[in-house]
Amino acid sequence: MTVTFGESDAAGPMVSVPGIGTPLTPTSFLLRAARVHPLRLAIIDGVRSFTYREFASRSRQGAGMLARLGIQAGDRVGVLCSNSAMMLELHHAVPMAGGVLVALNTRLAEEELAYILEHSGSRILAASREFADIGKRLSRLLGLPLILEDAKELGDGSLDYEETITSSVEAEPARVSEGSLLAINYTSGTTGRPKGVMYHHRGAYLQAVGRIYHGQLDSSSVYLWTLPMFHCNGWCHTWALSAAASTHICLRTIDPELIWRYLKELNVSHFSAAPTVLTMIAQSPDAAALPQPIRVDTGGAPPTPILLSRLADLNMSVTHLYGLTETFGPIGINEWKLEWDRLPGPEQARLRARQGVSNVIAEPLRVIDSSGVDVPADGATVGEIAAHGNTVMLGYFRDPDATAKAFLGDWFLTGDLAVMHPDGYLEIVDRRKDIIISGGENISSVEVERVLDAHPAVLESAVIAVPDPRWGEVPHAFISLRDGMSATPVELDTHVRAHLAGFKAPKQYFFGPLPKTGTGKIRKNVLRESTHPVTLESPRASQERSSS
Amino acid sequence: MTVTFGESDAAGPMVSVPGIGTPLTPTSFLLRAARVHPLRLAIIDGVRSFTYREFASRSRQGAGMLARLGIQAGDRVGVLCSNSAMMLELHHAVPMAGGVLVALNTRLAEEELAYILEHSGSRILAASREFADIGKRLSRLLGLPLILEDAKELGDGSLDYEETITSSVEAEPARVSEGSLLAINYTSGTTGRPKGVMYHHRGAYLQAVGRIYHGQLDSSSVYLWTLPMFHCNGWCHTWALSAAASTHICLRTIDPELIWRYLKELNVSHFSAAPTVLTMIAQSPDAAALPQPIRVDTGGAPPTPILLSRLADLNMSVTHLYGLTETFGPIGINEWKLEWDRLPGPEQARLRARQGVSNVIAEPLRVIDSSGVDVPADGATVGEIAAHGNTVMLGYFRDPDATAKAFLGDWFLTGDLAVMHPDGYLEIVDRRKDIIISGGENISSVEVERVLDAHPAVLESAVIAVPDPRWGEVPHAFISLRDGMSATPVELDTHVRAHLAGFKAPKQYFFGPLPKTGTGKIRKNVLRESTHPVTLESPRASQERSSS
Repeated sequence: MTVTFGESDAAGPMVSVPGIGTPLTPTSFLLRAARVHPLRLAIIDGVRSFTYREFASRSRQGAGMLARLGIQAGDRVGVLCSNSAMMLELHHAVPMAGGVLVALNTRLAEEELAYILEHSGSRILAASREFADIGKRLSRLLGLPLILEDAKELGDGSLDYEETITSSVEAEPARVSEGSLLAINYTSGTTGRPKGVMYHHRGAYLQAVGRIYHGQLDSSSVYLWTLPMFHCNGWCHTWALSAAASTHICLRTIDPELIWRYLKELNVSHFSAAPTVLTMIAQSPDAAALPQPIRVDTGGAPPTPILLSRLADLNMSVTHLYGLTETFGPIGINEWKLEWDRLPGPEQARLRARQGVSNVIAEPLRVIDSSGVDVPADGATVGEIAAHGNTVMLGYFRDPDATAKAFLGDWFLTGDLAVMHPDGYLEIVDRRKDIIISGGENISSVEVERVLDAHPAVLESAVIAVPDPRWGEVPHAFISLRDGMSATPVELDTHVRAHLAGFKAPKQYFFGPLPKTGTGKIRKNVLRESTHPVTLESPRASQERSSS
Repeated sequence: MTVTFGESDAAGPMVSVPGIGTPLTPTSFLLRAARVHPLRLAIIDGVRSFTYREFASRSRQGAGMLARLGIQAGDRVGVLCSNSAMMLELHHAVPMAGGVLVALNTRLAEEELAYILEHSGSRILAASREFADIGKRLSRLLGLPLILEDAKELGDGSLDYEETITSSVEAEPARVSEGSLLAINYTSGTTGRPKGVMYHHRGAYLQAVGRIYHGQLDSSSVYLWTLPMFHCNGWCHTWALSAAASTHICLRTIDPELIWRYLKELNVSHFSAAPTVLTMIAQSPDAAALPQPIRVDTGGAPPTPILLSRLADLNMSVTHLYGLTETFGPIGINEWKLEWDRLPGPEQARLRARQGVSNVIAEPLRVIDSSGVDVPADGATVGEIAAHGNTVMLGYFRDPDATAKAFLGDWFLTGDLAVMHPDGYLEIVDRRKDIIISGGENISSVEVERVLDAHPAVLESAVIAVPDPRWGEVPHAFISLRDGMSATPVELDTHVRAHLAGFKAPKQYFFGPLPKTGTGKIRKNVLRESTHPVTLESPRASQERSSS
């Protein structure tokens, strides 16, 4: 970077300097943590643990490993990992090697994962032990080298992660420009196929600093990973915790019993989870009030008053965040005001349900109408939330059309419909109807419809979101069959699950002609109203519910 | 900004996007505070107070006022203000108008201020009421328009600040590039004349975020301004407190009685001061243990064990910071470790005296030898502290020679001599001998010598730092008189004070031939050793001490 001052000034140029400092990159935090807190416990992952010195050293070895395997600047690395030390190390090793991290949603079906690996042009796949089988199939299918955790123990011919990383030399972190690609996070959008959200180093750096500030994380904090690390890179906490030199407690599966053991035994101070997961934790038979206060960040849906009250009893205070994959995770925060503490409980719960304001490192969130004008801040007029600034994605990877559609000028359109309250706090009232959020994960109704429509018996389909006490929302499907053809809910369910992740499969099927507008568009609002009196149900769906 | 990805990739360019977000500028924090916490108390300045909405509104009016007065992008605005609402508003108004803030050390002499205003090319001077007389003289001398606080009450023809600002329209903040000039802070350097340290928007933004993180400032914090706002822009707290939406308590003069009234009555939670000021506060007859815990940041000299213990009794915990004007204030922090809490008191005090490590947004501090190689981290080998990164100045304003001398490659040489301990924490052991730090302010020995040498009776002079229980260090002068000429300490003191700020005047004078090296250089080390047995003293200096 070269800085020049364009101002005309009689006394000549003021200054000409070679640069304005160093590029912002989130990997710098780990290097600082290793210098300042080398012996501080960085990661607990089951029976293994690592200090910050070890974490940094292994991440630099990881960068060396990737270089050895041919990864160069800009190369994508697919990562299919549970919340693990391996996942945290790769979050640092890949960018330190100049590469681009593609953290895969581990709940996706093989076909979806294959699509993402191909679309991102990933050159290597790394998988933790839980995903050895699917990793190997994907590796064979796509001809990708596979780095596999415990490959040796599994008697597998893949590269053993531990052996490969520990036999690599520590690389000097690549010098990157802060606007360059750091990660691509695929998300279900409105177009039916996952889209690759591009993160730059600058955005993740700033988001990390914002997160440790708002989250009050420091070197005494212990963070339990109830949030998937693949989800917006764990809201950038994968990097932020190094900035604070906090301890990561890895949680490879959501297991309430294990969560409670960790909460009680490891002096956990922080965790983050969608309300569905919070409910599961709060309702666990192991739940008990903790001696230490716990700060909980939630998002994806507003926490209910009952949940907030139950969590308060457990010594947990909740901050409601708002964000999307496209905004590096939480761009909004329900920033609590001192004076609200004096309000009655129900009023506090009502205020806490609002998505709030932009965080300290973000530009203001707006609520705009279709022509891009701010709606009045009256708490009643509905518009769409729009965002811009340093923590908005660069765009969708190799998808200029989708990128163009997602922006109105400089402003990213979130698809979330909201009102702006007179005090400047926004509140979501609805969302563009083609996205279903189930258990904190996005499901594209279009994507599910595309798969259903490919079934030989299906003439057309419509998938909608239906409120669900456990998952927040679940998809329901309305099917119009071809003349003379038949298909049962079980057949359609099997068909969907062969192509998509199980959580995307409709929980109920309804058959019959679909209501249409005069121009032939399916009237989903009519379907939404009709869905309450349930008439038909997928047997498998009811089986699942009763067993869960 | 346009981002392009240079990586060759068979499938074509990955992305071409118009920008990577918005420029980092510290004025954005005030706009956020006004949106999120409009009714929160932002400033208390004597009997006046302002909410964040008012603070932002007045700052934007200030930008409108400056535009009306002809200030354009890059124009410098000289500001001679006590710690006041006016000073805080101008910290936002000037950059919002695209201008460059030149906050003047109010302790300087008229001649020094005139030099700085001329050297910086300031186009306007703004002064708070305490500096009405000197402001008017400077305004006449340099032909600068003067914006004066209380000009109307003072019956003065200058522009009345309150009237001018409230009659101006709120301006849209100027769109700045983040590498552009934000402020020039003049500091006494080693060359005898104040040098203008250039701050960019990016550095002040990042420093502000770093400060609220490390300082644990939030919207419940109340910050007492014992630190001069002109000093590195109050370590960037002038902007940082808006990021946290904390309350500023302005303190126009250091008055222990008033400080204690505020500490007791206004629920102060934070303040910052050099150890000399801390000692004054701790020794005040009004001192009493406070009900609320207070976080104190200190710098300029290590806090002594006695001071730390006394402050702890008053419910104040101290963090030792390290920085210079050239590093946007504190770049280093004595980051405390949990395990140190278990050490015995004297050991804790020893650890707390170290300057520590770089803060979360800074690059590592190094201790290097004269060839630029890191000294061993053995706690014994002395080198010079070197810094680089986003919170190092752009250079000295219109002084390429001094800028070149201050850097070794990319690294700014601080002039502070230190050892690096094995744990990566550095500790200052000495400083390049031409700077004296007295009461937290830099004094250039060369500058004082230049003034002394201009006295007709003086053949040559040498000024050195001598330890002082109250001020940390004070200057002492060694004078060799011309043959047949005479001058008394009182005469020389009067002469110095006619040209320099009073705090720079030597506290003692010694007369006689100066010891020299073979090449004719004055051997200051010999003078330093000789200074302890005091023989001669300036009568005025002893008078000052006894009256203070």
